[in-house]
Amino acid sequence: MTRVTMLSGGVGGAKLVLGMERLLGDDGKVTAIVNTGDDFRHLGLAISPDIDTLLYTLSGKSNVAQGWGRADETWSFLQAVRSLSGEDWFALGDGDLALHVLRTAALAKGEPLSQIVARFAASWGIATRILPMTDDGVATWIDSPEGPLAFQEYFVARRCEPAVRAIRFDGAEAAAPAPGVIDAIETADLVVIAPSNPYLSVDPILAVPGIRQALGDTPARVVAVSPVMNGQAFKGPTAKLMGELGLPVTSATIAAHYAPFLNVMIVDHDDEIGDQGVEIVRTDIAMSTLDQKVALARTILDSCLR
Amino acid sequence: MTRVTMLSGGVGGAKLVLGMERLLGDDGKVTAIVNTGDDFRHLGLAISPDIDTLLYTLSGKSNVAQGWGRADETWSFLQAVRSLSGEDWFALGDGDLALHVLRTAALAKGEPLSQIVARFAASWGIATRILPMTDDGVATWIDSPEGPLAFQEYFVARRCEPAVRAIRFDGAEAAAPAPGVIDAIETADLVVIAPSNPYLSVDPILAVPGIRQALGDTPARVVAVSPVMNGQAFKGPTAKLMGELGLPVTSATIAAHYAPFLNVMIVDHDDEIGDQGVEIVRTDIAMSTLDQKVALARTILDSCLR
Repeated sequence: MTRVTMLSGGVGGAKLVLGMERLLGDDGKVTAIVNTGDDFRHLGLAISPDIDTLLYTLSGKSNVAQGWGRADETWSFLQAVRSLSGEDWFALGDGDLALHVLRTAALAKGEPLSQIVARFAASWGIATRILPMTDDGVATWIDSPEGPLAFQEYFVARRCEPAVRAIRFDGAEAAAPAPGVIDAIETADLVVIAPSNPYLSVDPILAVPGIRQALGDTPARVVAVSPVMNGQAFKGPTAKLMGELGLPVTSATIAAHYAPFLNVMIVDHDDEIGDQGVEIVRTDIAMSTLDQKVALARTILDSCLR
Repeated sequence: MTRVTMLSGGVGGAKLVLGMERLLGDDGKVTAIVNTGDDFRHLGLAISPDIDTLLYTLSGKSNVAQGWGRADETWSFLQAVRSLSGEDWFALGDGDLALHVLRTAALAKGEPLSQIVARFAASWGIATRILPMTDDGVATWIDSPEGPLAFQEYFVARRCEPAVRAIRFDGAEAAAPAPGVIDAIETADLVVIAPSNPYLSVDPILAVPGIRQALGDTPARVVAVSPVMNGQAFKGPTAKLMGELGLPVTSATIAAHYAPFLNVMIVDHDDEIGDQGVEIVRTDIAMSTLDQKVALARTILDSCLR
């Protein structure tokens, strides 16, 4: 039984988690520790974008073409909200609302997010254990020339246009890892940091007290898959953001970012990364198809598992 | 400018309000004082069934064939709730959710229901003033052989099957009429009690302190349209419920129920109602078509307005 624990943001991370889950099948157990710094309230509803991307991806419900939300979604709610002059900058699909409404109701009754997510995952027959990084409130804020922006305001409403000067994780210092998070890192056979945005998606996880320490202490090797190569990001605002933070957009920068606990860096075949004092594994990093996702997971296991 | 104030429950009342609004046009103003005893929380959402039936009916959005909810509704939310093992006994349509989500968020911010409803009505260009009977919480409870049942449990989940022994309006004694309610009764040219269920839909309105008094004091004539004739109700559980309460299913029973403030009773042509000490107007009470709704409103105005 191979136990693989993965740190993940949204879409990119979910792809690799899916590949690992399908690769291991009944011979292993994947635990995904997921960023909740993007979580926010919209129209009073508690929304957990990265958690939900994992739920949709692993249950086969994700809208792959769109890159977020559910496949076969309808939009009657949003249309009616518009007709009532309600806020419509965050697109809530009709089916998607079920997660938000049920989560909001359960949180109001005092159920921790980790239990709620476990129930949702069980209802949808998901094999991977999906753990929010914390059951406490942590909110990612972007410091920009326009002042502080809540994450979704920066990411969705402003489409990542404002320059990022700094990133803060409000509430992180007082947060505790969700039940099972530290244990999943300490008892794993391999820890994989998915190719999610290191600064927006992985750093919030690392900001929860105890997680960084566990990554340093775990006897398992810690592997990161680079989200960039030769000045370009595979997706999203990673490259733009690194430039704004004054960082070279290279896998070397990512390796240095994770240096205190990193054992292996997975980079693309053509990536020009020099000697980083960390083991480098070269492979094909693209994850468009399920086969590619599984192949990347296999390369990671074959080259890093001891 | 003819001012007509109407007391209304859901579907039946909304039909007559619509007829009156269309009849008066720019020459008058309809105010509907609407039952909120059916209001409840479902999945954490604040639902106001009768208010929403007025909103849908008067904006042309109601599903006439189904008898409740929106036309052209989709059901992705309910399907997803089922897949997550959530409660599905109360059918929430995707478009319908907009009212509930926006209302819940606004209530949480402290906005009174009457203001929220006024905003919704304005967004949809509704001419009639829709007033909840109160901004306070009033909940209709049914005493049955099985014990007390919350209204929606009796009405929707149990489809009115349990026998009704008594009906209570929890919170009514401490409730205040919503702003404008008393004034709308006192300054009306005519007050019309719609053919809604007297015990389940109109009595909660009458239970709000001050409303019954205002109906007795208003210089306007108070007219009721009978929801029954010769032992049968035009719709819904009215006849079954009257039988369970030991009441003859006749317009005479209804007239007696409203006796303290009633001036005119509108009954069907073929209704066998004896001398009730109240003026009787006979007409065609069916309101299937818009023409019938307007015709009934016209008969009421022509025969009762002074």
